[in-house]
Amino acid sequence: MDRTSLMTGIEKDWNKFLSLPISEKLPYFERDGRIYDCLFAQQLDRKSLTHIFEIADKLRTMTKKKEGMDFVNSLLSHKKAMLYFVQPSTRTFLSFLNACHILGIKTGEIRDTSTSSELKGETPEDTVRTFSSYVDMIIMRHPTPNFVEKTAWLMNKTNRPVPVINGGSGKDQHPTQAILDVYTLYRSFNSEIENKTIAMVGDLKRGRTVRSLSYLMKNYKNVKLIFISPKEFAMESDILEFLKKHNISYYETDNFEEGISQADAIYMTRIQDEHDKNGESKKVDISSFEFKQKHLDIIKKTAIIMHPLPRRSEIEISVDEDPRAMYWRQERNGMWARAALISIIFGVDHKVAALK
Amino acid sequence: MDRTSLMTGIEKDWNKFLSLPISEKLPYFERDGRIYDCLFAQQLDRKSLTHIFEIADKLRTMTKKKEGMDFVNSLLSHKKAMLYFVQPSTRTFLSFLNACHILGIKTGEIRDTSTSSELKGETPEDTVRTFSSYVDMIIMRHPTPNFVEKTAWLMNKTNRPVPVINGGSGKDQHPTQAILDVYTLYRSFNSEIENKTIAMVGDLKRGRTVRSLSYLMKNYKNVKLIFISPKEFAMESDILEFLKKHNISYYETDNFEEGISQADAIYMTRIQDEHDKNGESKKVDISSFEFKQKHLDIIKKTAIIMHPLPRRSEIEISVDEDPRAMYWRQERNGMWARAALISIIFGVDHKVAALK
Amino acid sequence: MDRTSLMTGIEKDWNKFLSLPISEKLPYFERDGRIYDCLFAQQLDRKSLTHIFEIADKLRTMTKKKEGMDFVNSLLSHKKAMLYFVQPSTRTFLSFLNACHILGIKTGEIRDTSTSSELKGETPEDTVRTFSSYVDMIIMRHPTPNFVEKTAWLMNKTNRPVPVINGGSGKDQHPTQAILDVYTLYRSFNSEIENKTIAMVGDLKRGRTVRSLSYLMKNYKNVKLIFISPKEFAMESDILEFLKKHNISYYETDNFEEGISQADAIYMTRIQDEHDKNGESKKVDISSFEFKQKHLDIIKKTAIIMHPLPRRSEIEISVDEDPRAMYWRQERNGMWARAALISIIFGVDHKVAALK
Repeated sequence: MDRTSLMTGIEKDWNKFLSLPISEKLPYFERDGRIYDCLFAQQLDRKSLTHIFEIADKLRTMTKKKEGMDFVNSLLSHKKAMLYFVQPSTRTFLSFLNACHILGIKTGEIRDTSTSSELKGETPEDTVRTFSSYVDMIIMRHPTPNFVEKTAWLMNKTNRPVPVINGGSGKDQHPTQAILDVYTLYRSFNSEIENKTIAMVGDLKRGRTVRSLSYLMKNYKNVKLIFISPKEFAMESDILEFLKKHNISYYETDNFEEGISQADAIYMTRIQDEHDKNGESKKVDISSFEFKQKHLDIIKKTAIIMHPLPRRSEIEISVDEDPRAMYWRQERNGMWARAALISIIFGVDHKVAALK
Repeated sequence: MDRTSLMTGIEKDWNKFLSLPISEKLPYFERDGRIYDCLFAQQLDRKSLTHIFEIADKLRTMTKKKEGMDFVNSLLSHKKAMLYFVQPSTRTFLSFLNACHILGIKTGEIRDTSTSSELKGETPEDTVRTFSSYVDMIIMRHPTPNFVEKTAWLMNKTNRPVPVINGGSGKDQHPTQAILDVYTLYRSFNSEIENKTIAMVGDLKRGRTVRSLSYLMKNYKNVKLIFISPKEFAMESDILEFLKKHNISYYETDNFEEGISQADAIYMTRIQDEHDKNGESKKVDISSFEFKQKHLDIIKKTAIIMHPLPRRSEIEISVDEDPRAMYWRQERNGMWARAALISIIFGVDHKVAALK
Repeated sequence: MDRTSLMTGIEKDWNKFLSLPISEKLPYFERDGRIYDCLFAQQLDRKSLTHIFEIADKLRTMTKKKEGMDFVNSLLSHKKAMLYFVQPSTRTFLSFLNACHILGIKTGEIRDTSTSSELKGETPEDTVRTFSSYVDMIIMRHPTPNFVEKTAWLMNKTNRPVPVINGGSGKDQHPTQAILDVYTLYRSFNSEIENKTIAMVGDLKRGRTVRSLSYLMKNYKNVKLIFISPKEFAMESDILEFLKKHNISYYETDNFEEGISQADAIYMTRIQDEHDKNGESKKVDISSFEFKQKHLDIIKKTAIIMHPLPRRSEIEISVDEDPRAMYWRQERNGMWARAALISIIFGVDHKVAALK
């Protein structure tokens, strides 16, 4: 189905569009076989992930010298982006901001809706359309589920659409976090993610990063997953079903030490108590799911420790100095992966790839 | 009277300056026959408006290609601007921000006085002088009537003045909105505003856009105005007097359908209830002054529908898809008109005009 | 002691490091004999001050023409800076922001911790490390005493340190203010600060600018200081001891007119009542320590009047128009001095110096 005929059928009805399976929506968010709006982890297959990673690697190598940085800076110097982040997030915000600046994109930002025309009774849809009037791309984090997707859908109906990147929307969509997580595996394992064992630890029930990462593992052969958590925070059944369907082997345990000792990558997460309804997180003892200095002795010498950050007490500070602690580099990988994604959306990736 | 002698007489006394008729103040805000501080719609005559529009048209054409955008980006790459917006306004703020970025101007912004030295007991005048120290231009929105004008007046007394652009001050001054409204007529009517009939609808009493637009119509021959509103929101007598004096024909009506059916441009506005003293707006029934889908059938085929935005229920959402709906383009026209104005203030307009 | 051996001994223990005398800490904040983290006024000797001033002078001369500004703009166009200002300060913030922009550095800013991951339970140290991940320099103002120093200390322990500049930390550290104050003396006195008499007026007890300035006077021969204040706000004994030790002559007086009449520079300051514990400032009559229009007649014809700003009633507004009023230029000097400092930290100062 091509984009136009897809539009014809559903463009009038957002709720009908929203209810489509993601696979059927994808053509609507592409242009010329290229990603245009980046909304879901499901848009990313093995080939597109590898392409993002190769461009990201190239960008970071090129920009080590001033000449390279000045060249990269000129790639999108004619573009302007709007960062619309109306939910607390300095980490993702700054990562995108600097990804834009690396490519020479000029940025404007809205980080507080109280400065906005919403005060004057404007709908969120009109507000977003206004922002899009002045720029060439919107990068958005929004608390309302599916709002970012709706923005992209609306934009595509106008006579001046601009690409939309999801910087986190509702509980389950944060595709660039998933990209940077896989990119960190890719870099740490010398491009070979196949055959690796990945342990995920903590609040697997509500952590969107572990959910997306599990999903994306279908792109790599023979990966094994270990889900380590108290039973109250076990991985949800929809993901387990997905893994079974794709023959991805996994097992669940509440034995932290046994689980991490077998892993090539240990993905730590924090308790997502902002999603608590009645403070239920406080009733669960998570102290035996924290990575302490002493655990460095029981994990593989080649293992890596990841964390989407911010952390609380899941990882003891002194662990930071171990070379296997990968979370700070993981964070930085995010900026490069986002710069790569943006360069692909605007079609200047071939200029990056062409350079020696 | 030249600027220096004007200054000599009044520079010590702001209240005396403020009370002068605008026509007598104008030389104070010009340099070498060129606009320097942009404060009032009254500074704009037919010739200067046309010049702004031609430069704006040129800028948008040139910047369609990367080479053109990079050239325009270099025009004022040595300049820095301060956006001081201490009143909610994302629309005008972002329009100016991106207008600066198009010309390569670097920007800093203050959008919340609570971060400011006003907390330490500084006067607003000192605060503004501080901001001006670091930049080459100030763009300001301020709730206090005449504060932007006072800033420009103060700047002109210092040994390091910088131009000041009014981004909205108090109830009546918002000259760049007036420019973009006339620019939208200019573009929509293929440069020919003469002989057109313009209907203005809604809260004509308190809407500064319709007031400024009425004023600027004196620059175009044989324009007819139709003021459509409930009697509680009728146009104020000062504007009606002005129109009579300049032989601009107008009539007032509360018949929405009859009024819009005759118009070449229909300028919709929202109720300015932020200016209510006792919620008086709520007592007025405005439902018969809203533009619905069905009205598309009764207006001229060549008519355009404008709105300064944000809108509430004045225009039904589905109207957006009609090609005569001009308000989203009107918004974008604002960015280009502002970029043109800034290029004129800094005297690089001839470089834009010279290009093919 | 070289940096590595210094680190070996103390890198594990912040409190031990903090308690070292500043002179012993300095190697830790240098690289290759060049300032790397700018944290204390004590890092600045006569030679380094003069170098900053010469580079600042060069920068302002070069940037008077577009070609020069474009060249300076390209010097650090490959760098990105983070401005982390979680304490009200528009003046210092904007000065640094525009100093970065002059050199072509791209900037991101955090000005409100409520948008930050601190909400999610992250430590301030992790937050800062996150910010550093994306940039090449951190410029920081923070209310917690020694927090900026701690940040620089932490950064130096990571495998990706970035330089840290102190934009004001706690009560006593604000080195770039001290630099701009001495730079103002340097420019006003045609590079000759020796043999000058400098009067400091106001809240000498709690004003960090007068404390730092007194300290830095040890770099210039035969400077005399006059401390003019009510006895409740007299200069603290630690500074007086320091002056005695370095044979810098000073005297204290509460006679404002007598004091200022002898001075070559009159450094006015405001009452720092934000440091009051019980509103004690209000009990002190400071009216006889204010610089009025009439005082212009009793000071030297060659004297200069300085103030770190913001001011309240310490200097009458009409004094601004006297050519000896130097405070607005002093403020602007800050931007140039900061640009010079940053160019030195990044090692591009020789490119500035080499230009004609």
